[in-house]
Amino acid sequence: MLKQPNLHRYKVIISYDGTSYSGWQLQPNGITIQGLLEEALLKIVKKQVRVIGAGRTDAGVHALAQVAHFDLEECLDPIRLPWMLNGILPHAIRIRACSHVPETFHAQRSAQGKEYHYHVWQERIIDPFVQLYRHYFPKQLSLELVKAAAQHFVGTHDFASFANLGSSAKTTIRTITRLELIEQEGGFRLEFEGNGFLYKMVRNITGVLLEIGSGKREINQLTELFAQKERQASGAAATAKGLFLVKVNYQTTDGEQIPFLPSPKA
Amino acid sequence: MLKQPNLHRYKVIISYDGTSYSGWQLQPNGITIQGLLEEALLKIVKKQVRVIGAGRTDAGVHALAQVAHFDLEECLDPIRLPWMLNGILPHAIRIRACSHVPETFHAQRSAQGKEYHYHVWQERIIDPFVQLYRHYFPKQLSLELVKAAAQHFVGTHDFASFANLGSSAKTTIRTITRLELIEQEGGFRLEFEGNGFLYKMVRNITGVLLEIGSGKREINQLTELFAQKERQASGAAATAKGLFLVKVNYQTTDGEQIPFLPSPKA
Repeated sequence: MLKQPNLHRYKVIISYDGTSYSGWQLQPNGITIQGLLEEALLKIVKKQVRVIGAGRTDAGVHALAQVAHFDLEECLDPIRLPWMLNGILPHAIRIRACSHVPETFHAQRSAQGKEYHYHVWQERIIDPFVQLYRHYFPKQLSLELVKAAAQHFVGTHDFASFANLGSSAKTTIRTITRLELIEQEGGFRLEFEGNGFLYKMVRNITGVLLEIGSGKREINQLTELFAQKERQASGAAATAKGLFLVKVNYQTTDGEQIPFLPSPKA
Repeated sequence: MLKQPNLHRYKVIISYDGTSYSGWQLQPNGITIQGLLEEALLKIVKKQVRVIGAGRTDAGVHALAQVAHFDLEECLDPIRLPWMLNGILPHAIRIRACSHVPETFHAQRSAQGKEYHYHVWQERIIDPFVQLYRHYFPKQLSLELVKAAAQHFVGTHDFASFANLGSSAKTTIRTITRLELIEQEGGFRLEFEGNGFLYKMVRNITGVLLEIGSGKREINQLTELFAQKERQASGAAATAKGLFLVKVNYQTTDGEQIPFLPSPKA
Protein backbone atom coordinates (compact mmCIF):
# COMPACT_ATOMS: atom_id res chain seq x y z
CA MET A 1 0.00 0.00 0.00
CA LEU A 2 1.23 3.42 -0.88
CA LYS A 3 2.10 5.52 2.09
CA GLN A 4 -0.29 8.45 2.43
CA PRO A 5 1.79 11.61 2.09
CA ASN A 6 1.88 13.97 5.01
CA LEU A 7 -1.04 16.32 4.68
CA HIS A 8 -1.24 19.87 5.93
CA ARG A 9 -4.63 21.13 7.04
CA TYR A 10 -5.67 24.72 6.39
CA LYS A 11 -8.56 26.66 7.86
CA VAL A 12 -9.95 29.62 5.95
CA ILE A 13 -12.56 32.27 6.80
CA ILE A 14 -14.54 33.43 3.78
CA SER A 15 -16.89 36.33 3.07
CA TYR A 16 -19.17 36.13 0.09
CA ASP A 17 -22.02 37.87 -1.63
CA GLY A 18 -24.20 34.88 -2.51
CA THR A 19 -26.34 36.72 -5.08
CA SER A 20 -24.82 35.17 -8.20
CA TYR A 21 -24.15 31.68 -6.88
CA SER A 22 -26.05 28.42 -6.44
CA GLY A 23 -25.12 28.36 -2.76
CA TRP A 24 -22.11 26.97 -0.93
CA GLN A 25 -22.30 23.30 -1.84
CA LEU A 26 -20.95 21.73 -5.04
CA GLN A 27 -23.70 21.28 -7.64
CA PRO A 28 -23.60 19.39 -10.92
CA ASN A 29 -25.23 22.37 -12.67
CA GLY A 30 -24.49 25.67 -11.01
CA ILE A 31 -21.60 27.76 -9.83
CA THR A 32 -21.05 27.39 -6.09
CA ILE A 33 -18.66 28.89 -3.57
CA GLN A 34 -17.23 25.47 -2.68
CA GLY A 35 -16.81 24.71 -6.39
CA LEU A 36 -14.98 27.97 -7.09
CA LEU A 37 -12.69 27.41 -4.09
CA GLU A 38 -11.85 23.89 -5.23
CA GLU A 39 -11.16 25.18 -8.75
CA ALA A 40 -8.88 27.90 -7.36
CA LEU A 41 -6.96 25.33 -5.28
CA LEU A 42 -6.68 23.07 -8.35
CA LYS A 43 -4.98 25.93 -10.19
CA ILE A 44 -2.54 26.45 -7.33
CA VAL A 45 -1.57 22.87 -6.37
CA LYS A 46 -2.51 21.15 -9.69
CA LYS A 47 -4.51 18.56 -7.78
CA GLN A 48 -8.16 18.05 -6.93
CA VAL A 49 -8.72 19.26 -3.37
CA ARG A 50 -11.88 18.73 -1.35
CA VAL A 51 -13.01 21.80 0.62
CA ILE A 52 -15.23 21.17 3.67
CA GLY A 53 -17.42 24.04 4.84
CA ALA A 54 -18.83 24.59 8.32
CA GLY A 55 -22.31 24.59 6.86
CA ARG A 56 -24.16 24.91 3.59
CA THR A 57 -25.64 28.20 2.61
CA ASP A 58 -28.43 28.16 0.01
CA ALA A 59 -28.48 29.97 -3.31
CA GLY A 60 -28.58 33.70 -2.66
CA VAL A 61 -27.56 33.45 1.00
CA HIS A 62 -24.52 35.51 2.03
CA ALA A 63 -21.67 34.94 4.46
CA LEU A 64 -19.56 37.34 6.44
CA ALA A 65 -17.45 34.55 7.90
CA GLN A 66 -18.06 31.07 6.56
CA VAL A 67 -15.35 28.68 7.75
CA ALA A 68 -13.84 25.84 5.72
CA HIS A 69 -10.90 23.48 5.84
CA PHE A 70 -8.91 21.53 3.27
CA ASP A 71 -5.78 19.38 3.19
CA LEU A 72 -2.79 19.92 0.94
CA GLU A 73 0.39 17.92 0.51
CA GLU A 74 2.18 21.22 0.20
CA CYS A 75 3.11 23.23 3.27
CA LEU A 76 2.23 26.65 1.92
CA ASP A 77 2.70 29.95 3.69
CA PRO A 78 -0.70 30.72 5.30
CA ILE A 79 -0.06 34.39 4.63
CA ARG A 80 0.63 33.95 0.92
CA LEU A 81 -1.99 31.27 0.17
CA PRO A 82 -5.09 33.45 0.66
CA TRP A 83 -3.61 36.12 -1.59
CA MET A 84 -3.14 33.52 -4.27
CA LEU A 85 -6.74 32.34 -3.81
CA ASN A 86 -8.10 35.91 -3.80
CA GLY A 87 -6.18 36.53 -7.00
CA ILE A 88 -8.15 33.74 -8.70
CA LEU A 89 -11.58 34.07 -7.03
CA PRO A 90 -14.14 36.69 -8.12
CA HIS A 91 -14.34 39.82 -5.93
CA ALA A 92 -17.72 38.62 -4.61
CA ILE A 93 -15.81 35.90 -2.70
CA ARG A 94 -12.93 36.90 -0.44
CA ILE A 95 -10.71 34.83 1.82
CA ARG A 96 -10.38 36.91 4.97
CA ALA A 97 -8.09 34.71 7.02
CA CYS A 98 -6.05 31.55 6.67
CA SER A 99 -4.16 29.43 9.17
CA HIS A 100 -2.56 26.01 9.62
CA VAL A 101 -4.68 23.87 11.92
CA PRO A 102 -4.18 20.41 13.43
CA GLU A 103 -5.81 17.43 11.69
CA THR A 104 -8.25 17.23 14.60
CA PHE A 105 -9.89 20.44 13.38
CA HIS A 106 -12.90 19.85 11.15
CA ALA A 107 -14.80 22.91 9.87
CA GLN A 108 -18.16 21.21 10.21
CA ARG A 109 -17.77 18.63 12.99
CA SER A 110 -15.72 20.85 15.30
CA ALA A 111 -18.21 23.69 15.07
CA GLN A 112 -19.83 24.39 18.44
CA GLY A 113 -22.39 26.81 17.13
CA LYS A 114 -23.25 29.39 14.54
CA GLU A 115 -24.61 32.88 14.27
CA TYR A 116 -26.94 34.00 11.48
CA HIS A 117 -28.45 37.42 10.89
CA TYR A 118 -31.64 37.92 8.96
CA HIS A 119 -32.16 41.44 7.55
CA VAL A 120 -35.63 42.84 6.93
CA TRP A 121 -36.39 46.05 5.01
CA GLN A 122 -39.52 47.74 6.30
CA GLU A 123 -39.73 51.07 4.45
CA ARG A 124 -41.98 51.43 1.41
CA ILE A 125 -39.16 52.18 -1.02
CA ILE A 126 -36.28 49.75 -0.94
CA ASP A 127 -32.81 51.22 -1.27
CA PRO A 128 -31.51 49.87 -4.63
CA PHE A 129 -28.06 49.53 -3.07
CA VAL A 130 -29.10 47.11 -0.33
CA GLN A 131 -31.92 45.32 -2.13
CA LEU A 132 -29.73 42.25 -2.72
CA TYR A 133 -29.12 41.96 1.04
CA ARG A 134 -32.57 42.58 2.53
CA HIS A 135 -35.92 40.82 2.65
CA TYR A 136 -38.39 43.44 1.39
CA PHE A 137 -41.32 43.45 3.80
CA PRO A 138 -43.03 46.86 3.77
CA LYS A 139 -46.15 45.63 5.61
CA GLN A 140 -47.34 47.03 8.92
CA LEU A 141 -45.52 45.05 11.59
CA SER A 142 -45.46 45.06 15.39
CA LEU A 143 -41.83 44.77 16.44
CA GLU A 144 -43.02 44.09 19.97
CA LEU A 145 -44.96 41.04 18.79
CA VAL A 146 -41.94 39.81 16.80
CA LYS A 147 -39.72 40.22 19.87
CA ALA A 148 -42.19 38.42 22.13
CA ALA A 149 -42.65 35.57 19.65
CA ALA A 150 -38.89 35.25 19.13
CA GLN A 151 -38.46 34.31 22.78
CA HIS A 152 -40.55 31.16 22.23
CA PHE A 153 -37.79 29.83 19.96
CA VAL A 154 -34.99 30.35 22.45
CA GLY A 155 -33.96 27.20 24.29
CA THR A 156 -33.81 23.52 23.37
CA HIS A 157 -36.70 22.40 21.17
CA ASP A 158 -37.61 19.93 18.49
CA PHE A 159 -37.52 22.20 15.44
CA ALA A 160 -38.99 19.62 13.01
CA SER A 161 -41.80 22.05 12.08
CA PHE A 162 -39.18 24.52 10.94
CA ALA A 163 -36.85 22.24 8.96
CA ASN A 164 -37.12 21.56 5.25
CA LEU A 165 -36.37 18.12 3.91
CA GLY A 166 -32.84 17.78 2.59
CA SER A 167 -31.26 17.93 5.98
CA SER A 168 -29.02 14.95 6.77
CA ALA A 169 -29.34 15.63 10.48
CA LYS A 170 -30.10 12.63 12.71
CA THR A 171 -32.16 14.64 15.15
CA THR A 172 -34.29 17.76 14.76
CA ILE A 173 -33.59 18.88 18.32
CA ARG A 174 -31.54 22.05 18.47
CA THR A 175 -30.73 24.78 20.96
CA ILE A 176 -31.12 28.46 20.12
CA THR A 177 -29.19 30.43 22.72
CA ARG A 178 -30.15 33.90 21.48
CA LEU A 179 -32.74 35.34 19.08
CA GLU A 180 -32.70 39.10 19.20
CA LEU A 181 -34.31 41.85 17.15
CA ILE A 182 -32.03 44.82 16.46
CA GLU A 183 -33.45 47.90 14.73
CA GLN A 184 -31.33 49.33 11.94
CA GLU A 185 -31.61 51.68 8.96
CA GLY A 186 -34.66 50.83 6.88
CA GLY A 187 -35.89 48.12 9.23
CA PHE A 188 -34.33 45.54 11.53
CA ARG A 189 -32.33 42.34 11.73
CA LEU A 190 -32.92 39.15 13.66
CA GLU A 191 -29.78 37.74 15.27
CA PHE A 192 -29.87 33.96 15.71
CA GLU A 193 -27.28 32.13 17.77
CA GLY A 194 -27.40 28.42 18.42
CA ASN A 195 -25.57 25.12 18.51
CA GLY A 196 -26.75 24.23 15.01
CA PHE A 197 -29.49 24.97 12.54
CA LEU A 198 -31.55 22.62 10.42
CA TYR A 199 -32.05 23.10 6.69
CA LYS A 200 -33.83 26.45 6.09
CA MET A 201 -34.58 26.72 9.82
CA VAL A 202 -33.60 30.40 10.15
CA ARG A 203 -35.67 31.42 7.12
CA ASN A 204 -38.64 29.33 8.25
CA ILE A 205 -38.59 30.78 11.76
CA THR A 206 -38.26 34.29 10.29
CA GLY A 207 -41.27 33.61 8.06
CA VAL A 208 -43.35 32.65 11.10
CA LEU A 209 -42.13 35.67 13.09
CA LEU A 210 -43.13 38.01 10.25
CA GLU A 211 -46.55 36.37 10.11
CA ILE A 212 -47.00 36.91 13.83
CA GLY A 213 -45.74 40.50 13.66
CA SER A 214 -48.14 41.33 10.85
CA GLY A 215 -51.13 39.70 12.55
CA LYS A 216 -51.47 36.71 10.23
CA ARG A 217 -50.77 34.26 13.06
CA GLU A 218 -51.14 34.36 16.84
CA ILE A 219 -48.31 33.84 19.31
CA ASN A 220 -50.39 31.26 21.19
CA GLN A 221 -50.46 29.09 18.05
CA LEU A 222 -46.72 28.52 18.43
CA THR A 223 -46.99 25.68 20.96
CA GLU A 224 -49.25 23.79 18.57
CA LEU A 225 -46.96 24.58 15.66
CA PHE A 226 -43.94 23.12 17.48
CA ALA A 227 -46.02 20.03 18.35
CA GLN A 228 -47.04 19.33 14.75
CA LYS A 229 -43.46 18.49 13.81
CA GLU A 230 -43.95 18.92 10.12
CA ARG A 231 -42.73 21.65 7.85
CA GLN A 232 -46.09 22.21 6.12
CA ALA A 233 -47.50 23.61 9.33
CA SER A 234 -45.32 26.72 9.29
CA GLY A 235 -45.63 29.41 6.64
CA ALA A 236 -43.49 30.52 3.72
CA ALA A 237 -39.74 30.79 4.31
CA ALA A 238 -38.36 34.31 4.17
CA THR A 239 -36.29 34.98 1.02
CA ALA A 240 -32.66 33.84 0.82
CA LYS A 241 -31.15 37.26 0.15
CA GLY A 242 -31.87 38.59 3.66
CA LEU A 243 -29.78 35.87 5.31
CA PHE A 244 -26.12 36.12 6.39
CA LEU A 245 -23.96 33.47 8.02
CA VAL A 246 -22.10 35.75 10.41
CA LYS A 247 -19.93 33.51 12.57
CA VAL A 248 -19.00 29.91 13.27
CA ASN A 249 -17.90 29.19 16.80
CA TYR A 250 -15.25 26.63 17.74
CA GLN A 251 -13.91 25.51 21.08
CA THR A 252 -10.80 27.47 20.33
CA THR A 253 -11.64 31.14 20.34
CA ASP A 254 -10.15 31.81 16.90
CA GLY A 255 -13.60 31.75 15.38
CA GLU A 256 -14.43 34.73 17.59
CA GLN A 257 -12.19 37.33 16.10
CA ILE A 258 -11.78 37.49 12.38
CA PRO A 259 -8.46 39.12 11.69
CA PHE A 260 -7.87 41.29 8.70
CA LEU A 261 -5.73 39.31 6.34
CA PRO A 262 -2.10 40.32 6.90
CA SER A 263 -0.39 41.48 3.76
CA PRO A 264 2.38 39.18 2.50
CA LYS A 265 4.43 42.31 1.84
CA ALA A 266 3.97 43.69 5.34
CA MET B 1 -53.79 69.97 -38.46
CA LEU B 2 -54.64 67.96 -35.39
CA LYS B 3 -54.59 69.97 -32.21
CA GLN B 4 -51.81 68.83 -29.91
CA PRO B 5 -53.51 67.54 -26.76
CA ASN B 6 -52.71 69.26 -23.51
CA LEU B 7 -49.64 67.63 -22.08
CA HIS B 8 -48.73 67.30 -18.44
CA ARG B 9 -45.05 67.36 -17.56
CA TYR B 10 -43.70 65.17 -14.75
CA LYS B 11 -40.36 65.36 -13.03
CA VAL B 12 -38.99 62.24 -11.34
CA ILE B 13 -35.97 61.59 -9.13
CA ILE B 14 -34.50 58.12 -9.60
CA SER B 15 -31.97 55.97 -7.69
CA TYR B 16 -30.38 53.06 -9.46
CA ASP B 17 -27.73 50.43 -9.10
CA GLY B 18 -26.19 50.55 -12.57
CA THR B 19 -24.39 47.18 -12.28
CA SER B 20 -26.68 45.18 -14.54
CA TYR B 21 -27.54 47.87 -17.10
CA SER B 22 -26.02 49.33 -20.24
CA GLY B 23 -26.19 52.81 -18.75
CA TRP B 24 -28.93 55.42 -18.72
CA GLN B 25 -29.41 56.04 -22.40
CA LEU B 26 -31.57 53.98 -24.74
CA GLN B 27 -29.50 51.42 -26.68
CA PRO B 28 -30.51 49.25 -29.61
CA ASN B 29 -28.92 46.24 -27.88
CA GLY B 30 -28.84 46.50 -24.14
CA ILE B 31 -31.13 47.11 -21.21
CA THR B 32 -30.94 50.72 -20.04
CA ILE B 33 -32.58 52.74 -17.27
CA GLN B 34 -34.22 55.10 -19.76
CA GLY B 35 -35.47 52.13 -21.75
CA LEU B 36 -36.97 50.42 -18.69
CA LEU B 37 -38.67 53.66 -17.60
CA GLU B 38 -40.17 54.15 -21.06
CA GLU B 39 -41.39 50.54 -21.08
CA ALA B 40 -42.97 51.01 -17.64
CA LEU B 41 -44.75 54.18 -18.81
CA LEU B 42 -45.92 52.37 -21.94
CA LYS B 43 -47.56 49.77 -19.70
CA ILE B 44 -49.31 52.47 -17.69
CA VAL B 45 -50.52 54.90 -20.37
CA LYS B 46 -50.51 52.47 -23.35
CA LYS B 47 -48.52 54.98 -25.41
CA GLN B 48 -44.87 55.45 -26.28
CA VAL B 49 -43.43 58.12 -23.96
CA ARG B 50 -40.02 59.76 -24.31
CA VAL B 51 -38.13 60.14 -21.01
CA ILE B 52 -35.44 62.87 -20.90
CA GLY B 53 -32.69 62.48 -18.30
CA ALA B 54 -30.55 65.21 -16.77
CA GLY B 55 -27.47 63.42 -18.01
CA ARG B 56 -26.31 60.09 -19.31
CA THR B 57 -24.63 57.67 -17.00
CA ASP B 58 -22.45 54.96 -18.54
CA ALA B 59 -22.85 51.22 -18.16
CA GLY B 60 -22.12 50.28 -14.55
CA VAL B 61 -22.41 53.85 -13.21
CA HIS B 62 -24.88 54.34 -10.36
CA ALA B 63 -27.24 57.17 -9.40
CA LEU B 64 -28.57 58.28 -6.05
CA ALA B 65 -30.68 61.00 -7.64
CA GLN B 66 -30.83 61.10 -11.41
CA VAL B 67 -33.52 63.52 -12.60
CA ALA B 68 -35.76 63.01 -15.62
CA HIS B 69 -38.90 64.49 -17.13
CA PHE B 70 -41.62 63.22 -19.47
CA ASP B 71 -44.95 64.42 -20.82
CA LEU B 72 -48.24 62.56 -20.57
CA GLU B 73 -51.66 63.41 -21.90
CA GLU B 74 -53.04 62.04 -18.67
CA CYS B 75 -53.07 64.13 -15.53
CA LEU B 76 -52.03 61.42 -13.08
CA ASP B 77 -51.70 61.72 -9.34
CA PRO B 78 -47.97 62.43 -8.73
CA ILE B 79 -48.23 60.43 -5.53
CA ARG B 80 -49.70 57.34 -7.19
CA LEU B 81 -47.68 57.40 -10.41
CA PRO B 82 -44.29 56.55 -8.87
CA TRP B 83 -45.82 53.63 -6.98
CA MET B 84 -47.17 52.31 -10.25
CA LEU B 85 -43.73 52.73 -11.86
CA ASN B 86 -41.95 51.11 -8.90
CA GLY B 87 -44.39 48.22 -9.16
CA ILE B 88 -43.15 47.54 -12.70
CA LEU B 89 -39.46 48.47 -12.46
CA PRO B 90 -36.86 46.08 -11.00
CA HIS B 91 -35.80 46.76 -7.41
CA ALA B 92 -32.42 48.01 -8.66
CA ILE B 93 -34.25 51.08 -10.03
CA ARG B 94 -36.45 53.12 -7.71
CA ILE B 95 -38.43 56.29 -8.31
CA ARG B 96 -37.84 58.36 -5.18
CA ALA B 97 -39.95 61.41 -5.95
CA CYS B 98 -42.41 62.63 -8.56
CA SER B 99 -44.02 66.02 -9.16
CA HIS B 100 -45.92 68.00 -11.76
CA VAL B 101 -43.65 70.67 -13.27
CA PRO B 102 -44.30 73.50 -15.75
CA GLU B 103 -43.45 72.90 -19.41
CA THR B 104 -40.53 75.28 -19.01
CA PHE B 105 -38.76 72.67 -16.88
CA HIS B 106 -36.34 70.48 -18.84
CA ALA B 107 -34.37 67.86 -16.91
CA GLN B 108 -31.25 68.38 -19.01
CA ARG B 109 -31.40 71.99 -20.23
CA SER B 110 -32.66 73.47 -16.95
CA ALA B 111 -29.90 71.77 -14.95
CA GLN B 112 -27.56 74.31 -13.37
CA GLY B 113 -25.05 71.83 -12.16
CA LYS B 114 -24.38 68.32 -10.98
CA GLU B 115 -22.68 66.48 -8.18
CA TYR B 116 -20.83 63.21 -8.68
CA HIS B 117 -19.04 61.07 -6.11
CA TYR B 118 -16.26 58.71 -7.01
CA HIS B 119 -15.58 55.94 -4.45
CA VAL B 120 -12.15 54.36 -4.10
CA TRP B 121 -11.39 51.23 -2.06
CA GLN B 122 -7.87 51.30 -0.68
CA GLU B 123 -7.60 48.28 1.62
CA ARG B 124 -5.99 45.09 0.37
CA ILE B 125 -9.11 42.96 0.67
CA ILE B 126 -12.19 44.40 -0.92
CA ASP B 127 -15.44 43.95 1.00
CA PRO B 128 -17.54 41.62 -1.22
CA PHE B 129 -20.64 43.63 -0.26
CA VAL B 130 -19.39 46.95 -1.64
CA GLN B 131 -17.25 45.67 -4.51
CA LEU B 132 -19.89 46.65 -7.06
CA TYR B 133 -19.76 50.25 -5.81
CA ARG B 134 -16.05 50.88 -5.37
CA HIS B 135 -12.99 51.26 -7.57
CA TYR B 136 -10.50 48.75 -6.17
CA PHE B 137 -7.16 50.52 -5.86
CA PRO B 138 -5.07 48.91 -3.12
CA LYS B 139 -1.82 50.64 -4.17
CA GLN B 140 0.17 52.89 -1.89
CA LEU B 141 -1.31 56.35 -2.31
CA SER B 142 -0.59 59.79 -0.86
CA LEU B 143 -3.95 61.34 -0.03
CA GLU B 144 -2.15 64.65 0.44
CA LEU B 145 -0.91 64.54 -3.14
CA VAL B 146 -4.39 63.65 -4.40
CA LYS B 147 -5.88 66.56 -2.44
CA ALA B 148 -3.27 69.00 -3.72
CA ALA B 149 -3.68 67.85 -7.33
CA ALA B 150 -7.49 68.01 -7.07
CA GLN B 151 -7.30 71.76 -6.45
CA HIS B 152 -5.79 72.23 -9.93
CA PHE B 153 -9.09 71.08 -11.43
CA VAL B 154 -11.26 73.51 -9.47
CA GLY B 155 -12.31 76.59 -11.44
CA THR B 156 -13.10 77.24 -15.09
CA HIS B 157 -10.89 75.31 -17.50
CA ASP B 158 -10.86 73.76 -20.92
CA PHE B 159 -11.28 70.08 -19.97
CA ALA B 160 -10.67 68.74 -23.52
CA SER B 161 -7.83 66.52 -22.23
CA PHE B 162 -10.29 64.85 -19.87
CA ALA B 163 -13.23 64.30 -22.23
CA ASN B 164 -13.84 61.18 -24.27
CA LEU B 165 -15.26 61.44 -27.76
CA GLY B 166 -18.99 60.86 -27.82
CA SER B 167 -19.84 64.10 -26.12
CA SER B 168 -22.23 66.29 -28.11
CA ALA B 169 -21.08 69.35 -26.17
CA LYS B 170 -20.24 72.47 -28.21
CA THR B 171 -17.50 73.59 -25.88
CA THR B 172 -15.12 71.71 -23.63
CA ILE B 173 -14.93 74.57 -21.13
CA ARG B 174 -16.50 73.71 -17.80
CA THR B 175 -16.42 74.97 -14.23
CA ILE B 176 -15.73 72.69 -11.30
CA THR B 177 -16.83 74.50 -8.16
CA ARG B 178 -15.69 71.85 -5.67
CA LEU B 179 -13.47 68.77 -5.77
CA GLU B 180 -12.99 67.36 -2.32
CA LEU B 181 -11.49 64.18 -0.90
CA ILE B 182 -13.46 62.67 1.99
CA GLU B 183 -12.03 59.68 3.83
CA GLN B 184 -14.48 56.87 4.50
CA GLU B 185 -14.49 53.18 5.46
CA GLY B 186 -12.08 51.24 3.29
CA GLY B 187 -10.74 54.29 1.49
CA PHE B 188 -12.12 57.62 0.31
CA ARG B 189 -14.45 59.36 -2.11
CA LEU B 190 -13.89 62.31 -4.38
CA GLU B 191 -16.81 64.74 -4.45
CA PHE B 192 -17.12 66.64 -7.72
CA GLU B 193 -19.47 69.60 -8.08
CA GLY B 194 -19.69 71.67 -11.22
CA ASN B 195 -21.88 73.31 -13.83
CA GLY B 196 -21.55 70.37 -16.17
CA PHE B 197 -19.30 67.45 -16.94
CA LEU B 198 -18.04 66.20 -20.31
CA TYR B 199 -18.28 62.57 -21.35
CA LYS B 200 -16.23 60.43 -18.90
CA MET B 201 -14.69 63.59 -17.40
CA VAL B 202 -15.10 62.53 -13.75
CA ARG B 203 -13.56 59.11 -14.38
CA ASN B 204 -10.72 60.55 -16.44
CA ILE B 205 -9.86 63.17 -13.80
CA THR B 206 -10.02 60.47 -11.11
CA GLY B 207 -7.66 58.33 -13.18
CA VAL B 208 -5.13 61.17 -13.31
CA LEU B 209 -5.52 61.92 -9.59
CA LEU B 210 -4.83 58.28 -8.72
CA GLU B 211 -1.74 58.34 -10.94
CA ILE B 212 -0.48 61.44 -9.14
CA GLY B 213 -1.29 60.02 -5.72
CA SER B 214 0.59 56.82 -6.49
CA GLY B 215 3.61 58.60 -7.93
CA LYS B 216 3.09 57.66 -11.58
CA ARG B 217 2.68 61.30 -12.57
CA GLU B 218 3.82 64.64 -11.15
CA ILE B 219 1.50 67.46 -10.12
CA ASN B 220 3.55 69.89 -12.17
CA GLN B 221 2.71 67.95 -15.33
CA LEU B 222 -0.92 69.02 -14.97
CA THR B 223 -0.52 72.42 -16.66
CA GLU B 224 0.95 70.71 -19.70
CA LEU B 225 -1.77 68.05 -19.60
CA PHE B 226 -4.52 70.70 -19.66
CA ALA B 227 -2.73 72.45 -22.55
CA GLN B 228 -2.55 69.32 -24.73
CA LYS B 229 -6.33 69.29 -25.14
CA GLU B 230 -6.52 65.72 -26.21
CA ARG B 231 -7.85 62.75 -24.35
CA GLN B 232 -4.88 60.48 -25.15
CA ALA B 233 -2.68 62.64 -22.96
CA SER B 234 -4.37 61.64 -19.74
CA GLY B 235 -4.28 58.13 -18.33
CA ALA B 236 -6.79 55.33 -18.00
CA ALA B 237 -10.26 56.27 -16.80
CA ALA B 238 -11.17 54.91 -13.39
CA THR B 239 -13.72 52.07 -13.56
CA ALA B 240 -17.43 52.85 -13.94
CA LYS B 241 -18.59 51.07 -10.81
CA GLY B 242 -17.00 53.62 -8.43
CA LEU B 243 -19.07 56.48 -9.86
CA PHE B 244 -22.36 57.84 -8.50
CA LEU B 245 -24.48 60.68 -9.86
CA VAL B 246 -25.51 62.17 -6.52
CA LYS B 247 -27.49 65.31 -7.31
CA VAL B 248 -28.70 67.52 -10.14
CA ASN B 249 -29.15 71.17 -9.25
CA TYR B 250 -31.86 73.41 -10.71
CA GLN B 251 -32.62 77.06 -10.17
CA THR B 252 -35.53 75.99 -8.02
CA THR B 253 -34.24 74.40 -4.87
CA ASP B 254 -36.24 71.21 -5.25
CA GLY B 255 -33.17 69.41 -6.58
CA GLU B 256 -31.58 70.07 -3.20
CA GLN B 257 -33.76 68.00 -0.96
CA ILE B 258 -34.88 64.62 -2.13
CA PRO B 259 -38.01 63.74 -0.23
CA PHE B 260 -38.91 60.23 0.70
CA LEU B 261 -41.74 59.21 -1.54
CA PRO B 262 -45.01 59.80 0.32
CA SER B 263 -47.16 56.71 0.53
CA PRO B 264 -50.39 56.83 -1.48
CA LYS B 265 -52.11 55.20 1.48
CA ALA B 266 -50.90 57.75 3.98
